[in-house]
Amino acid sequence: MKTIHVALLGLGTVGSGTFEVIMERQKDVFVHKVGADILVKTILVRHPDKYRSVVPDGVQLTADINDVLNDPAIDIVVEVMGGIEPAKTYILQALAAGKSVVSANKDLIAVAGREIYAAAAKAGKDFMFEAAAMGAIPIVHPLMEGLSANHIQEIVGIMNGTTNYILSKMAAEGWSYDQALTEATRLGYAEADPTADVEGYDAGRKVAILANLAFHCPAVFDDVYIEGITKVSAVDIAFASRFGYVIKLLGIADQQEDGVALRVYPALIDKSHPLASVNDSFNAAFVRGDAVDEAMFYGRGAGKLPTASAVVGDVIDIARNIVCGCEGRLGDNTFASCHFLPIDEVKSSFFVRLSVKDTSGVLAQIGQAFGDADVSIAQVVQDTIADSDLADLVIITHAVKERNFRRALAAVLATDVVQAEESVIRVYGDVR
Amino acid sequence: MKTIHVALLGLGTVGSGTFEVIMERQKDVFVHKVGADILVKTILVRHPDKYRSVVPDGVQLTADINDVLNDPAIDIVVEVMGGIEPAKTYILQALAAGKSVVSANKDLIAVAGREIYAAAAKAGKDFMFEAAAMGAIPIVHPLMEGLSANHIQEIVGIMNGTTNYILSKMAAEGWSYDQALTEATRLGYAEADPTADVEGYDAGRKVAILANLAFHCPAVFDDVYIEGITKVSAVDIAFASRFGYVIKLLGIADQQEDGVALRVYPALIDKSHPLASVNDSFNAAFVRGDAVDEAMFYGRGAGKLPTASAVVGDVIDIARNIVCGCEGRLGDNTFASCHFLPIDEVKSSFFVRLSVKDTSGVLAQIGQAFGDADVSIAQVVQDTIADSDLADLVIITHAVKERNFRRALAAVLATDVVQAEESVIRVYGDVR
Repeated sequence: MKTIHVALLGLGTVGSGTFEVIMERQKDVFVHKVGADILVKTILVRHPDKYRSVVPDGVQLTADINDVLNDPAIDIVVEVMGGIEPAKTYILQALAAGKSVVSANKDLIAVAGREIYAAAAKAGKDFMFEAAAMGAIPIVHPLMEGLSANHIQEIVGIMNGTTNYILSKMAAEGWSYDQALTEATRLGYAEADPTADVEGYDAGRKVAILANLAFHCPAVFDDVYIEGITKVSAVDIAFASRFGYVIKLLGIADQQEDGVALRVYPALIDKSHPLASVNDSFNAAFVRGDAVDEAMFYGRGAGKLPTASAVVGDVIDIARNIVCGCEGRLGDNTFASCHFLPIDEVKSSFFVRLSVKDTSGVLAQIGQAFGDADVSIAQVVQDTIADSDLADLVIITHAVKERNFRRALAAVLATDVVQAEESVIRVYGDVR
Repeated sequence: MKTIHVALLGLGTVGSGTFEVIMERQKDVFVHKVGADILVKTILVRHPDKYRSVVPDGVQLTADINDVLNDPAIDIVVEVMGGIEPAKTYILQALAAGKSVVSANKDLIAVAGREIYAAAAKAGKDFMFEAAAMGAIPIVHPLMEGLSANHIQEIVGIMNGTTNYILSKMAAEGWSYDQALTEATRLGYAEADPTADVEGYDAGRKVAILANLAFHCPAVFDDVYIEGITKVSAVDIAFASRFGYVIKLLGIADQQEDGVALRVYPALIDKSHPLASVNDSFNAAFVRGDAVDEAMFYGRGAGKLPTASAVVGDVIDIARNIVCGCEGRLGDNTFASCHFLPIDEVKSSFFVRLSVKDTSGVLAQIGQAFGDADVSIAQVVQDTIADSDLADLVIITHAVKERNFRRALAAVLATDVVQAEESVIRVYGDVR
């Protein structure tokens, strides 16, 4: 019976979850599932002494990457240290040393994915990264395998648990953004510095990675237009609800007429859409393809054991490849090139809330200004604001290129009936 | 450049969808995805003359299976003819002749899966059947691969589109079962003879197949307890809604204390559960595992191109195995044995609607009868029935073994205040 040896780079939350799944939870079943045993042989950590008491004898702790790279017994390197460097160098060195690699590092793959895919292909080894896209949710492998008979037209998802928790609570409990963020921090859903989550960077990295797989072109983080949720207000959520929508932070990658559009922003989404009922810290990716029609994948986007589920799933996949002598089986999927649209060129509908003078003829004047700029209005609600001579005017437009919308909005704001632009939020999908 | 040759057994809806995806939609991309070209070489049909005009020259039409089995150029046999025989014989012969096989045939796999898995393992070839479980939804491969680092505790799903359409319309439009079935037939969602769908047999086959993968044990259709939806009434749906539930036809496979329970029945499910918002003809499978926590897979359970998406996904998977010389890579996953619980031994909560005499003390008497039989009541609603001296008494119990519930119900029915048992429907999950 062959034994496949794994090295972990890092023993933080995901690393210790990975260790637990390999060495305890799945210990006795690898032989049935893989036809070989799987063991963690070596763990790279900065301070080996700190971990000696929590790691069983027989597992090597080291601070020296050469103990991994130069050990011919190590078949699979699992990078769960995070960050760009030295993670990137270690991954490339491991591939060059003839080891297959699993990584959960979305920061790295979103900027250097293509270089690593190419290095893996050149080495004839596997580079797998299921955990880097949507955490525990199987989406990387379905895109490369189960859905590979499709031309993917669109992936839209709720790709960040922290922001989904915040928006879910604002909608369900009527909390303000600040209240919801405070509670998310208290529960450990938000980090002390929540910037990467609430500004949409985390979701943006996932959009870049998923676009690689869906459209086979080398998208990177910088190709993704990003807006966070810090400006979303309880008032907007309430208005959205009256129109039949919820507000979610969406990551979207789709094929438009002129190119591929990649973006992350808060958006109104119809309450009947399957993504609309994805609540709390859950994530989901909704996929449209020419054959499959619509499919959705839902689950935990983060967490110790959920992320380890994806990491060890990849370890098992590679172990099966090793057993049957076919590492590198999936190859490099980024064989195409894409034109990425700047946000100005992307088509959406828009939700606009303006504070306007509460007099007759306002709607006619604003409607005229939008119409003159070729922006067509789908729905309007006007609400008097108590104890003022102002009203909230909320408009949902039909789909229009962002550049044209911005030009129209400037004209609207220049009319003498508009007091202020309160919010502009994009609307996902067709407007009724 | 290698060319991988496929034979189709059958050219019905799924067969022609498969042909379209291989020969038209994916034609130019196989070389990038697989490193080889893929072509349909031969199609087995009963009457080749009938199809000559719709199949391009160069594709062989034959009524003789030996033209497939004895052609050494054919690498992959795709069985989309349906039925038990001759499909089963052809699949076993193809494996024995050294060809890998894809099948969309749930009727067959739900009764003879284990025999075919073993034959494939013996031949060192692949037998793949993604389309047989949930149509277009990737669930077979995620269970065998992406989620393989889990001990699966439960799969619960909406596994039949026809019945989900019927129940969705009954809930949303207030239609009767007969009205909804008529509309489903008109739209082509229900077949002329809807028995296999509405009686739950189709969903039952999927439960058996998924249990093979989740629990690694050879479940067959006969191991699944099955009830259909023909007795579900608009009244029950309305009462369920008042308690915060919808009624869905659920397929459930779970590990209980004493064994594995496999069943299909209409059940109340909490409105906040992700499955509750799976509507119309969509399907979904919700999975709980020890590492992944919760995951859900949603999409089309049937249809020409959606089913072809799954079939051709398997063809691509096998083609990759052929290119790297590792057919049979996944092996036979049914390495364990399970004890399947008879329905009497399965634990559920129950929704019971009784017509009772509309007098005081009724609830006390019925509560006493349930209590004496150790069945604990979670919720009760009593509604006077207009123009009668009767009331609808609706009770939801806490979880109890089915045998104990039936014993308690018999005692309740024997009291002099109960006029009739109107309906008994199980409740999925924990009751509040």
